[in-house]
Amino acid sequence: MTDIKLRSDVTAKLVKSSATDVDVVQAARVSTQGAESLGSDKKPAGLINFLMRDRHGSPFEHTSFTFLIEAPIFVAREHMRHRAGWSYNEESGRYKELQGVVYMPAEDRPLVQVGKPGAYHFEKGTFQHRGSVLGSMRVAYGEALRQYHNMLDDGVAREVARMVLPVGLFTSYYATCNARSLMHFLSLRTISEGSTFPSFPQREIEMVAEQMEEALSAAMPLTHTAFQANGRVAP
Amino acid sequence: MTDIKLRSDVTAKLVKSSATDVDVVQAARVSTQGAESLGSDKKPAGLINFLMRDRHGSPFEHTSFTFLIEAPIFVAREHMRHRAGWSYNEESGRYKELQGVVYMPAEDRPLVQVGKPGAYHFEKGTFQHRGSVLGSMRVAYGEALRQYHNMLDDGVAREVARMVLPVGLFTSYYATCNARSLMHFLSLRTISEGSTFPSFPQREIEMVAEQMEEALSAAMPLTHTAFQANGRVAP
Amino acid sequence: MTDIKLRSDVTAKLVKSSATDVDVVQAARVSTQGAESLGSDKKPAGLINFLMRDRHGSPFEHTSFTFLIEAPIFVAREHMRHRAGWSYNEESGRYKELQGVVYMPAEDRPLVQVGKPGAYHFEKGTFQHRGSVLGSMRVAYGEALRQYHNMLDDGVAREVARMVLPVGLFTSYYATCNARSLMHFLSLRTISEGSTFPSFPQREIEMVAEQMEEALSAAMPLTHTAFQANGRVAP
Amino acid sequence: MTDIKLRSDVTAKLVKSSATDVDVVQAARVSTQGAESLGSDKKPAGLINFLMRDRHGSPFEHTSFTFLIEAPIFVAREHMRHRAGWSYNEESGRYKELQGVVYMPAEDRPLVQVGKPGAYHFEKGTFQHRGSVLGSMRVAYGEALRQYHNMLDDGVAREVARMVLPVGLFTSYYATCNARSLMHFLSLRTISEGSTFPSFPQREIEMVAEQMEEALSAAMPLTHTAFQANGRVAP
Repeated sequence: MTDIKLRSDVTAKLVKSSATDVDVVQAARVSTQGAESLGSDKKPAGLINFLMRDRHGSPFEHTSFTFLIEAPIFVAREHMRHRAGWSYNEESGRYKELQGVVYMPAEDRPLVQVGKPGAYHFEKGTFQHRGSVLGSMRVAYGEALRQYHNMLDDGVAREVARMVLPVGLFTSYYATCNARSLMHFLSLRTISEGSTFPSFPQREIEMVAEQMEEALSAAMPLTHTAFQANGRVAP
Repeated sequence: MTDIKLRSDVTAKLVKSSATDVDVVQAARVSTQGAESLGSDKKPAGLINFLMRDRHGSPFEHTSFTFLIEAPIFVAREHMRHRAGWSYNEESGRYKELQGVVYMPAEDRPLVQVGKPGAYHFEKGTFQHRGSVLGSMRVAYGEALRQYHNMLDDGVAREVARMVLPVGLFTSYYATCNARSLMHFLSLRTISEGSTFPSFPQREIEMVAEQMEEALSAAMPLTHTAFQANGRVAP
Repeated sequence: MTDIKLRSDVTAKLVKSSATDVDVVQAARVSTQGAESLGSDKKPAGLINFLMRDRHGSPFEHTSFTFLIEAPIFVAREHMRHRAGWSYNEESGRYKELQGVVYMPAEDRPLVQVGKPGAYHFEKGTFQHRGSVLGSMRVAYGEALRQYHNMLDDGVAREVARMVLPVGLFTSYYATCNARSLMHFLSLRTISEGSTFPSFPQREIEMVAEQMEEALSAAMPLTHTAFQANGRVAP
Repeated sequence: MTDIKLRSDVTAKLVKSSATDVDVVQAARVSTQGAESLGSDKKPAGLINFLMRDRHGSPFEHTSFTFLIEAPIFVAREHMRHRAGWSYNEESGRYKELQGVVYMPAEDRPLVQVGKPGAYHFEKGTFQHRGSVLGSMRVAYGEALRQYHNMLDDGVAREVARMVLPVGLFTSYYATCNARSLMHFLSLRTISEGSTFPSFPQREIEMVAEQMEEALSAAMPLTHTAFQANGRVAP
């Protein structure tokens, strides 16, 4: 029988970063100090807050974060809509037999949408809703993977057989960004108190974003503080 | 019973374009003529061939093509990896109930991969292979759509229910590009005699690319001729 | 004697555009209507305002504006810092003998900066200031052009001789953008009542921006109205 | 008297990098190994050569180089035409009094252009040519700086006074790129034996490029070898 593994979490593991608040300060100070800006690290908090507030965004770009993300295909689809300042490489259904790891919403994941487009919210749903999702997903995921393997066993090419696989299947990809493109992503893909603008992320990409935000906060605490203090608007 | 529609074709309909060979000529001639380049249209063929051959790519960017594409999700996934010079808007599984139109390879679509990664080719496959694909896809697609509708009928949110839908499901999206970003796409997503570099597109995105190439050829015949004559390398 | 022409204006002439409010509406409606969005033009004002307010920026990208700009080099330098959604081709000092057209601030151009970086404003200045600028610029521009022509006359390559030319010299360039990248440019390069964020453009690039804004307003009145109504924040 | 410093060199100092051949290997292997690609470092040379040859460019993007560059304004102008995968911050003539450091071609810098656009080459020139350049540049640079300081002394704003400054004046800027965007830059901004495509850089930006290429070669030797071996075409 086809082996299926259910997952309710996602991971955005920081592979490496080259990103500090001082990188921002040096790049910003070149405006007023020229080449003497190199090594500059005086009063970074005030400068970084000033840059964030007045939307001087380019100094935040001289930084780099690389993540290895494991998430369902529908999350990767949303993520890769971000173009400027983002690089990606993803697991291939053409070059690799895909594993049977599929996404199943966790207990606390709201399942019911109330309201209409532009003005709705989510509610947890009843025991009945939860049962519907669990049951339907098990059946559909199971059948998709069974038929995928049937085709592979029959000698059909991976790139053809994979057409039946669901967007809830897990994929893995590297994503590299800079602090500016990351803040732009966070501003759209998280919901947070104190945001100047509203955002409407699907919960699963927000789970990715939350892990990325921790990496930003750890590597560039002054930048992250200024981002939060200025309404989470990417500069 | 859940209604399923099988499709074996894709469409890339040209919605509008603002793209002529003269646009390229004017932009290129600003180098040597300054503002007098406006209105310039002398000897375009030679100039365009020169630009293409020597990789002066920027003059080709002052053009715009907008397409409405209907293709399976796995094609849209490959398409949206193209970032520079591309804009997209796609049908949403969060805001819309998705229709049961799914991709089924046509009779002449090769189904069997022979060789190994980096050095393989495709063959049509036997009657047996064809039967495997037809049978498995019908079953898997059918079950996925059935469970999708079961969840919707039970009141589950669209963004949750859609997780079971297959990457072979049709989606629709607008894609806007310029002649340079389009040629870059064509160089990677078509296989053509006379190409300087090899390319390895999946057949289904090549079907999209072929329709886009017709639009390029019709709107900018000199540009397209020069692209072909110079080994299909995007300048 | 070397011929010098003084100019106090800049021009951003609209060469062509493919940009209407309906383009935005169609691209936005693909989210909820799929391929049936093509031809959609109902209630565009409300939808466009909603997109602008909630920062759904991508639908504004399926549009294209091409300008031919005549402005001093220091303006072109600022302009070409805009990367995403912008294409450029400029007059070349390597391939063309540059003309002696130079920028001289007009009567009403403020000449004196009062305050310090981060908190200053401009004042018109006295008759004395005006005299200083007129006199010094005539002398410096004149000498630069004289020596440029001396070197050219002596057989020195254009790309070497041009090194003495001032950043106040006029250049010409084509710039192509879309409505989203244009609004981003306008938000940073104009000062306007009702802006959510402050901006600090040099007056000369603001003169370019003002002409571009007229083109946006003429081609896409609902978009422009929504941009203004929502604090001139690019979505 | 106004103080002028002549320079004939440029510098592109590597400030920091996060870039190794293993970064490329890991990102590439995610295609075939999924999340197990992390830590992969087997047979990197062959894989990297394969990626370069067949234009699989995206794995090279998960790397980052930051340079501090000191070069004349006309070089910065050419550099900042590179948009995708590049970030910049530059010394500002609005926020800072610019220093009197100007570019003077070195003894071995060819001064004379022979031939016509599209088919010319440079020759060293005679003692006469050298004298013309030395003399004219000293006079023009000197006058520009003298008038710049006259205006500053008279209380004119920096952003106005700087209009007379020449494009041969030195500026400083931070530039951050990845290995892919750097190779694209190198392919256009250096002249090298074994290049598949011709290139026509002005010598001064090639001097910047050569220093950047050393940084690439030092940090990513397999990548640089493959770049050279495959005709210096950015993948």
